[in-house]
Amino acid sequence: MATAEILSIGTELLLGQILNTNSQFISTKLAELGINCYRHTTVGDNKDRIKYCLRNALDNCDLVITTGGLGPTTDDLTTECIAELFNAEMQVDHAIEEKLRTTFQSLGYPMPKSNLKQALRPAGAQCLPNPAGTAPGIIWVLGSDELTRAGVQQPTKMRAILTFPGVPVEMMAMWEHTASHFLEKSFASGSIYSVELKHYGIGESALAEKYADLLELANPTVAPLAGQGECRLRVTASAPTKEEARHIAQPVVDKIITGSGILCYGTDSDSLESVVARLLWDRNFTVAVAESCTGGLVSKRLTDIPGSSRFLGLSAITYSNDAKQKLLGVPDATLQAHGAVSKETACAMAIGVRSLAAADIGIGVTGIAGPDGGTAEKPVGLVFLGLAANNFVADRKLNFPSTMSRRDIRYRAASGAIDLVRRYLLEFANMA
Amino acid sequence: MATAEILSIGTELLLGQILNTNSQFISTKLAELGINCYRHTTVGDNKDRIKYCLRNALDNCDLVITTGGLGPTTDDLTTECIAELFNAEMQVDHAIEEKLRTTFQSLGYPMPKSNLKQALRPAGAQCLPNPAGTAPGIIWVLGSDELTRAGVQQPTKMRAILTFPGVPVEMMAMWEHTASHFLEKSFASGSIYSVELKHYGIGESALAEKYADLLELANPTVAPLAGQGECRLRVTASAPTKEEARHIAQPVVDKIITGSGILCYGTDSDSLESVVARLLWDRNFTVAVAESCTGGLVSKRLTDIPGSSRFLGLSAITYSNDAKQKLLGVPDATLQAHGAVSKETACAMAIGVRSLAAADIGIGVTGIAGPDGGTAEKPVGLVFLGLAANNFVADRKLNFPSTMSRRDIRYRAASGAIDLVRRYLLEFANMA
Repeated sequence: MATAEILSIGTELLLGQILNTNSQFISTKLAELGINCYRHTTVGDNKDRIKYCLRNALDNCDLVITTGGLGPTTDDLTTECIAELFNAEMQVDHAIEEKLRTTFQSLGYPMPKSNLKQALRPAGAQCLPNPAGTAPGIIWVLGSDELTRAGVQQPTKMRAILTFPGVPVEMMAMWEHTASHFLEKSFASGSIYSVELKHYGIGESALAEKYADLLELANPTVAPLAGQGECRLRVTASAPTKEEARHIAQPVVDKIITGSGILCYGTDSDSLESVVARLLWDRNFTVAVAESCTGGLVSKRLTDIPGSSRFLGLSAITYSNDAKQKLLGVPDATLQAHGAVSKETACAMAIGVRSLAAADIGIGVTGIAGPDGGTAEKPVGLVFLGLAANNFVADRKLNFPSTMSRRDIRYRAASGAIDLVRRYLLEFANMA
Repeated sequence: MATAEILSIGTELLLGQILNTNSQFISTKLAELGINCYRHTTVGDNKDRIKYCLRNALDNCDLVITTGGLGPTTDDLTTECIAELFNAEMQVDHAIEEKLRTTFQSLGYPMPKSNLKQALRPAGAQCLPNPAGTAPGIIWVLGSDELTRAGVQQPTKMRAILTFPGVPVEMMAMWEHTASHFLEKSFASGSIYSVELKHYGIGESALAEKYADLLELANPTVAPLAGQGECRLRVTASAPTKEEARHIAQPVVDKIITGSGILCYGTDSDSLESVVARLLWDRNFTVAVAESCTGGLVSKRLTDIPGSSRFLGLSAITYSNDAKQKLLGVPDATLQAHGAVSKETACAMAIGVRSLAAADIGIGVTGIAGPDGGTAEKPVGLVFLGLAANNFVADRKLNFPSTMSRRDIRYRAASGAIDLVRRYLLEFANMA
């Protein structure tokens, strides 16, 4: 399997003025080609450092892909550094020079002298055309002579350098137009198939323990990822073709789906809310939400889904006790006996909003999102969920650490509420 | 000037599954501290490569900041690699172990054995506390003994390693809570003062034209930034002390605040909703929101603010016409004559929810968030806002491009609604 390093060049990246999205794009593309991305490096506009990083990358990888530093200004140094590293002469590409002149002519002013620089490339390197801008890059397949001259380790192994500008649209256009075909022909080794199995209701370490044997596999690999109260298992297989890779991954995917049962809610671009939307559509069910501590977030997430008007007609945000009573009919006695943050109130909210909206399912969410408002008995992070349906009431208690941010508590409480609908639909409301 | 390298650890980054936003955040913060960020490196979950990159970073920089690889699973290798590099024993931090156990206890299940790993750190390293999650990092100020032992070049120069988890919110919380103070004390050179002036209701190029002269300045610098329907002007000054830097920036800041008037809604961590929350508190006013196309997002954003229960008691999400009529009393005649997406309906929703909640201000939002549901007359992106207060009704029409995503249309419509409250409070509801 060929290896690659992505070398991003530009001081603005090191100052944090620009987010490096190029490395992610290229990494995704390399993975699809079955090229092993070994490292990302970002370096400033400094000749010595750029040359050091280039040599180091060539020592370790078959392929070095650079972004940035192809512009006309004095701090655009990429091509120059590559030429110096291999002690190669810079030659004018007359076709590029002509194209540059035409571009400036059409803009109505003469080409600044500095732009001539963009028509130069080291003797031996090929042009990597730029269909979306003025500055082309280079593709340089390096022979052992050149590698020996630059002092690169293992000079008999074929290497290549590809240079791209830093502007994402230009880089992407050049990738699709030329680079991907070149790499597929010269460096690709088969294909990658990758799928993410999304879980709710189990922690990362419990998931890793449950599938400890799978995490040891070499092909497919299985890796756990966690974030925002959810966990994912990524299954990645490589093989000569995408179909074969899928075939290698499938038994492991099936094993996890079976093993996780209801804990696994979907794959890849699925979200809890998109899965619940599909389940509601399938059953032709409607839902209404009564939110206290989540303040609209559950409804917001459900209505993020295009077409959500088919399952959500009305929700209520009842922060105050008054609103809970007046709008949802939560009995004063319930609030008095159990408090606004209680299982009983959550269920009464669910029942009330279901009736108000004439929906199939009502959801109630009440809790303490913090940072203030917690007590010893009812600390910040305590959340109660209620679900009401036809002859059915369920509740769930969530206990987030008191140190968790208001934002996280609210997000995770909303996830819990949406998951409660999912579980109800899967376990209790099976289709006729 | 101290130099730093940011080392991001995680195979998922090299596969392009995750965008590396951490490096940008840290780079920005280093720039503010006057620490020279020398390089970003991203490496996979591989011990030899991680150790190679760590050593190489220490050879070149005073400060190595890692992100990722602090989790409980077998591919979380950061702490282990650092310990191995310096041949240091791993010791249990009993306070962290206790904290981990308590967290799992409060979640209601026993701590998996693998999580114990997160309480380990190399002898000699200090804990870098994690206020937002379970896994702490380390701060290790390395002496020449340790550096010599690891074979680092120039071992007599002080170095430090700081480790952060890969989860951005945790990394950022740790940075603000502990790391920034440590770095300011030990590595910062000179000071930067930077302030962001946040604008709503003016585009980036109009703002850049308005302040074209200021954009040419060298110290302070003024840079426009845009995103999500808002614009910011960042004013940055550098000087030996923070106070002197502030002094250099202040006249320019004042000039912009005066020049922009109501278009400039706040600075730095202010958001439209936090500014509106303050205005509501100051005036002891309450607000209620009736949302159609935003589906809860306006209420969610207002209740993101801790203490929002003091100004928001009730909101209603009325997606269906039925809910608009039944709950808010929007007249059938209004819906028939003007449609659900109209100025008239938006105002009737505002009046209705104000009355339902007995609030000082009622807000109505109705529009077409797409991607479906648009017509030639009322295309995707058309949104009407209504505001009702004591003897006062106002409306606003927003026209987003039909090609804009559902997500963006909803977010920007919500911003418009919150800004409408802000303008009402500033222009019409001045304090007695």
